[in-house]
Amino acid sequence: MAEENPNGRGTPGGPPAGDRLTYEDSGVDYDRIDPLKVLAQQAARATGANLERAGTGAREVAASRGESAYVLDIGDAYLASITECLGTKALVADAMRKGPAVSGVSGPPEASGREASGRTWYDHIAQDTIATAVNDLVTVGAKPLSIHAYWAAGSSDWFDDTERMNDLVEGWRAACDVLGVAWGGGETPCLTGVVEEGAIDLAASCVGIIRPKSRLTLGEDLAAGDAIVLLESSGIHANGLTLARKLAERLPEGYATVMPGGRTYGEALLDPTVLYPPVTEAAFEAGIGLRYVANITGHGWRKIMRHPGRLTYRITELPPVPEVLRFMVDETRQTAEEAYGSLNMGAGFALFVRPEDGDAAVACAEAQGIRAWVAGVVEDGPRQVVIEPLGVTLSGESLALRD
Amino acid sequence: MAEENPNGRGTPGGPPAGDRLTYEDSGVDYDRIDPLKVLAQQAARATGANLERAGTGAREVAASRGESAYVLDIGDAYLASITECLGTKALVADAMRKGPAVSGVSGPPEASGREASGRTWYDHIAQDTIATAVNDLVTVGAKPLSIHAYWAAGSSDWFDDTERMNDLVEGWRAACDVLGVAWGGGETPCLTGVVEEGAIDLAASCVGIIRPKSRLTLGEDLAAGDAIVLLESSGIHANGLTLARKLAERLPEGYATVMPGGRTYGEALLDPTVLYPPVTEAAFEAGIGLRYVANITGHGWRKIMRHPGRLTYRITELPPVPEVLRFMVDETRQTAEEAYGSLNMGAGFALFVRPEDGDAAVACAEAQGIRAWVAGVVEDGPRQVVIEPLGVTLSGESLALRD
Repeated sequence: MAEENPNGRGTPGGPPAGDRLTYEDSGVDYDRIDPLKVLAQQAARATGANLERAGTGAREVAASRGESAYVLDIGDAYLASITECLGTKALVADAMRKGPAVSGVSGPPEASGREASGRTWYDHIAQDTIATAVNDLVTVGAKPLSIHAYWAAGSSDWFDDTERMNDLVEGWRAACDVLGVAWGGGETPCLTGVVEEGAIDLAASCVGIIRPKSRLTLGEDLAAGDAIVLLESSGIHANGLTLARKLAERLPEGYATVMPGGRTYGEALLDPTVLYPPVTEAAFEAGIGLRYVANITGHGWRKIMRHPGRLTYRITELPPVPEVLRFMVDETRQTAEEAYGSLNMGAGFALFVRPEDGDAAVACAEAQGIRAWVAGVVEDGPRQVVIEPLGVTLSGESLALRD
Repeated sequence: MAEENPNGRGTPGGPPAGDRLTYEDSGVDYDRIDPLKVLAQQAARATGANLERAGTGAREVAASRGESAYVLDIGDAYLASITECLGTKALVADAMRKGPAVSGVSGPPEASGREASGRTWYDHIAQDTIATAVNDLVTVGAKPLSIHAYWAAGSSDWFDDTERMNDLVEGWRAACDVLGVAWGGGETPCLTGVVEEGAIDLAASCVGIIRPKSRLTLGEDLAAGDAIVLLESSGIHANGLTLARKLAERLPEGYATVMPGGRTYGEALLDPTVLYPPVTEAAFEAGIGLRYVANITGHGWRKIMRHPGRLTYRITELPPVPEVLRFMVDETRQTAEEAYGSLNMGAGFALFVRPEDGDAAVACAEAQGIRAWVAGVVEDGPRQVVIEPLGVTLSGESLALRD
């Protein structure tokens, strides 16, 4: 939210300042992290020529730098790879594990460690972690092949909660089964002094293949007239959790707060992220040319203009907003511009297709059990997202490509 | 050390108990982590069949499970992939950054954060992190192609130390250049509440290719008579750091303790891990058949019997022990069995080659500036490492394959 609302305070004409809570208030200070990202990106770019110099028989696809996955040309195929981190969502599961139970049913009093009797939610957390990696990987046209787990605990006692370990392992395996990928291995270190006691740092690495090479999707053909197909999200997914946790701290009932529909806030936050790779696979199999693909994560709908071109993205239909996001936006008194500029607001993934392929793309998603909408159109014009039903425009300057 | 010395106390005939410090004393409790590793390995194995079921055109090389990198068959080549974590070595660099300087020269008084004037050592830390991944990856015969960085900081203020950021980036780039790999991207999240404030969790993912497929090295041909070629280490590398940090806590001068040769303990701990991939590449180019390859990391020389076969590894020549390891072993009063069973003791990597190839393998390493020795021979017999010059035998039961 830094760009629209640099002080984290109410804007003129916006909601009153008192109870507001923006992403910047929540403690993530991108302005301090960005110099490292820029340094790293520049240095990384300079290593691209190493592959030819070293006679590896591979070369990088330079256009993939700045996209969501890195692509190598190995001759008869491309390889794509990525490492992604869950973020802080596991802290919500940990709090729910210790605290009251779901859906208004009172749970046991505050319990700690292995005596906790709540659900662990780590089956969902496992899927979230894998989703952060594979949903990015497939944007370049890759089919995911293998996943490595990175599970770094802060203390040996993390491993005493057998139910939680089982859920993490089973959730990880189940997501791999859905995706048709192999779980190739991983690291399970105990990093006392680096990771917080009782916490775990979760990440996933994924390798995929792009074969035939015509599947490569880097956006060269995206053009005015293309249809924007939005795919439903299941809730908050894995972005915006720092804000969500801050909000829980100031709700009198915390995660146990019952939302209007009857579910608790914590339970709804833990709905697992949608796995979108079955949709991109189905689209390829159906012969639908994907002109560009964007995973809608941090920065919310600003990710719709992830493509670097000078194009306007006009949205004319809004997907329904999951209750947990509506609740967060209401409770933190965010404007629509803030909400759509930082959260997925019901759309977790975007396909950009030829106008005549829009309905077929929707059908592909729905055949995988994922609702989808032809929600808008790409137009010539300045790089921006125009959300017509809300009268909101997200400007191109507000999205520095840092993923 | 758990197996030889379950109570972390002096053994009969060993050194006195008072000042001893073993790996288990240092706080890493493998017995608590192992159930998760076993659960995860079993579940991961079950996902191997997904690739064929999903029609990916790839299949797993099942024999690579349990080896140091995961291998996929994609038709005309194999792919290898891995994710590895640095561990806690960065905490040593952080302490040195704040504390007194090197080699007996007094540094500034305790300084904090961006005012610190000591070296950052993060160029070395970057190389250590990359080495943990690539040194494992090449054991299966892979040529590394791309590396992803995983740098998860505990607080935004981590990014305020510009010199440290520069060193991390430049060290990472320099290691990629030495290896001839492309730095493909990475994650630089800020994980407040998961990673300790002021700390950073560092890991690397690496993808490699095995082409021609005959380069695949999984140890099928390893046999009695093969020569064991040991390659020098530069010091502690990235294993045993928890013990090393515990020792620093109880030395009156801590990391500033000057060792007999004149260097400080902290400075010597931070010598960067040797990058071994140029040696395996040179061996392949020289036509030397590698029968098996082992990266000597956690569990020290027990890793020499990493191969699952019933074979005895007889070591007849000992590489020189780096001063920092000799100092640690002396100060913690470890037996030779404990030391060689947990630290690299001067040998960071092992090549197993036909007897007639031993000298050529040594020449390949030395051409890359890495000292090497034909240090022993593979024999029929129970799975064990016999270190003849020390009268020490490391039994097969003492190495559960968990890497």
